[in-house]
Amino acid sequence: MFFELQHTAQGGAARAGRFTTGHGVVETPVFMPVGTAATVKGILHRDLADDARAQIILANTYHLYLRPGVRVLEEAGGVHRFCGWERPMLTDSGGFQVFSLADCRKITEEGCRFASHIDGSRHLFTPENVVDTQRSIGADIMMAFDECPPGTADREYAAKSLELTHRWLARCWEQYERTEPKYGYRQSLFPIVQGVVYPDLRAESARFVQQFDADGYAIGGLAVGEPAPVMYEMIELTNGILPSDKPRYLMGVGTPVNILEAIERGVDMFDCVMPTRNGRNGMLFTAEGIINIRNLKWREDFSPIDPAGYCFADTAYSKAYLRHLTISGEMLAAQISSLHNVAFYCWLTAEARRRIINGTFTEWKREMVVKLANRL
Amino acid sequence: MFFELQHTAQGGAARAGRFTTGHGVVETPVFMPVGTAATVKGILHRDLADDARAQIILANTYHLYLRPGVRVLEEAGGVHRFCGWERPMLTDSGGFQVFSLADCRKITEEGCRFASHIDGSRHLFTPENVVDTQRSIGADIMMAFDECPPGTADREYAAKSLELTHRWLARCWEQYERTEPKYGYRQSLFPIVQGVVYPDLRAESARFVQQFDADGYAIGGLAVGEPAPVMYEMIELTNGILPSDKPRYLMGVGTPVNILEAIERGVDMFDCVMPTRNGRNGMLFTAEGIINIRNLKWREDFSPIDPAGYCFADTAYSKAYLRHLTISGEMLAAQISSLHNVAFYCWLTAEARRRIINGTFTEWKREMVVKLANRL
Repeated sequence: MFFELQHTAQGGAARAGRFTTGHGVVETPVFMPVGTAATVKGILHRDLADDARAQIILANTYHLYLRPGVRVLEEAGGVHRFCGWERPMLTDSGGFQVFSLADCRKITEEGCRFASHIDGSRHLFTPENVVDTQRSIGADIMMAFDECPPGTADREYAAKSLELTHRWLARCWEQYERTEPKYGYRQSLFPIVQGVVYPDLRAESARFVQQFDADGYAIGGLAVGEPAPVMYEMIELTNGILPSDKPRYLMGVGTPVNILEAIERGVDMFDCVMPTRNGRNGMLFTAEGIINIRNLKWREDFSPIDPAGYCFADTAYSKAYLRHLTISGEMLAAQISSLHNVAFYCWLTAEARRRIINGTFTEWKREMVVKLANRL
Repeated sequence: MFFELQHTAQGGAARAGRFTTGHGVVETPVFMPVGTAATVKGILHRDLADDARAQIILANTYHLYLRPGVRVLEEAGGVHRFCGWERPMLTDSGGFQVFSLADCRKITEEGCRFASHIDGSRHLFTPENVVDTQRSIGADIMMAFDECPPGTADREYAAKSLELTHRWLARCWEQYERTEPKYGYRQSLFPIVQGVVYPDLRAESARFVQQFDADGYAIGGLAVGEPAPVMYEMIELTNGILPSDKPRYLMGVGTPVNILEAIERGVDMFDCVMPTRNGRNGMLFTAEGIINIRNLKWREDFSPIDPAGYCFADTAYSKAYLRHLTISGEMLAAQISSLHNVAFYCWLTAEARRRIINGTFTEWKREMVVKLANRL
């Protein structure tokens, strides 16, 4: 069995579990740092594993397909060997990137035509070939090809888009069953629940995806412009329909508060670029609140970056030094801030897991969502 | 005694020695990575010490004076505590940076007026205040304030400039003797030999600086446009005059071949931005020659970056992966290449030391200068 549900919080939907891949076990809830081009920006893989304690990382099919390309990844023997990451990896389907990054995209029944944002070259993604591409990349978890409409899409568009996503899912699944892993270990395929912010569409989608006996299910198309309470409502509704014995992955979400709210509603897996992207801009997430390290108030604050010490850099460097690096535009600023933020996100989900198991999650979460929103 | 000469190569001038500072011992010959703004670009201090095995690093007085400024460094208790580097540090005098980076510079007897390259603010460096600034920064080794004319300067200019540099040195030394360390450990002040490419001026300068009983002496104003053979001639001439019981520091030099040639001529200390700057551009130095990692030939070369393994990244990552990162403009490329190059430079000087001591330096150096110039 891929997933094992280990514990459900008393009086709530929060869960602790674990799933097993060809590259090892992942304990949930889990945060998966985003490694777009097979690199979590600014962090050596050794530090990602040993220091930030990331259990599993993401890579983006769109980026890897364009660079280094499928052939190089196949010659390398898959993405793990290519980038030197020995733990589990997940790839998205490329759909979201095509819609958000590529030029001249055109969606048809067949798939999506687009021009590369790198060199303008023209490509076609179909449900079938994104499964093939993910087979070649060699991720432990692959994602179905879907359309991800904006959070403000009207009902008519949302319904039409959902039908297309469901037809694409069926084609993905067929291709998945028709093909074999290339590197000797199991590759799971996760369907994605869509439906924008329309409860009936979300419910329909959460039921539809279950016709495929997948190792897990994802919730997509959230945190794309809708208000947070609406997102939480959609998560709650969807998780009420999805089977409890499969992991649930909330795609691309979010702030530390978003993550705790979603864990409380039964989500097991998360990914988000915020720890690295915001880190590069000088924003640090801590258990006491958010630090904008550029602020003048840190100029002569020689206390550790974060005395809680989620990674070695938190206590090896001071706020004043990190501010100096950030103001000076030094690479090391991005390295330290990214490492800190990723370590903090990994700690947050690991701590949630611990609290779920020992029965203190609800109370802890209630205190944390207040503290996490502080501006230090 | 600051410096201990341990061994001189048979039939040559190459030397092995060591010097002792308030932050520990440094074995020579030694390469000192350049940490301009108290950060060796792209490398965490932990990795610089434990992985690249840097014994001592540089920081630039000009940069630290402008950012974070003397007050912050004093409040921190000196640069070591500010940046979390516990081993020895050296600061230059700021002279070279003022002449090469600052705007609207104007040299007078008093010193040098300049406008900051960051915000255009106006400042004055004098022999006295650069000593004061270096006292506040807290480097173990401080450098005298000098003028560094281009390698193409005519004799008349070179002679006038040298006289000014010598008058400035006397003022530096006076200020050095008038002031005390601020953080409880010894700070050495190294005079700098100048004289462009004119043997008589270099000889005059090498004799002049010895009136100050310094812990060591530097050779400045080389590798600034003159041909390499002329540089080697100037080094040989200068080292023939400098005392043998003091370390000799060749400032800002150079390629691995330059370094071996200079070691053979009796130089003990080096610094250069090439390992980090060229690393950021995708150039790797190895014992077998130079790699331009952008080249198409590495696209599917899954062998380790450098099987010799000077740092963990050399064998943790493949050439194909590093090429992918470099082509994709990923930060991790600069991190890996910088770490490799700095580790290689530190290995090169440590290996030279080992060879000097065991009597195989001359032969090894003859083979290495051929290999190091290869293009792989």
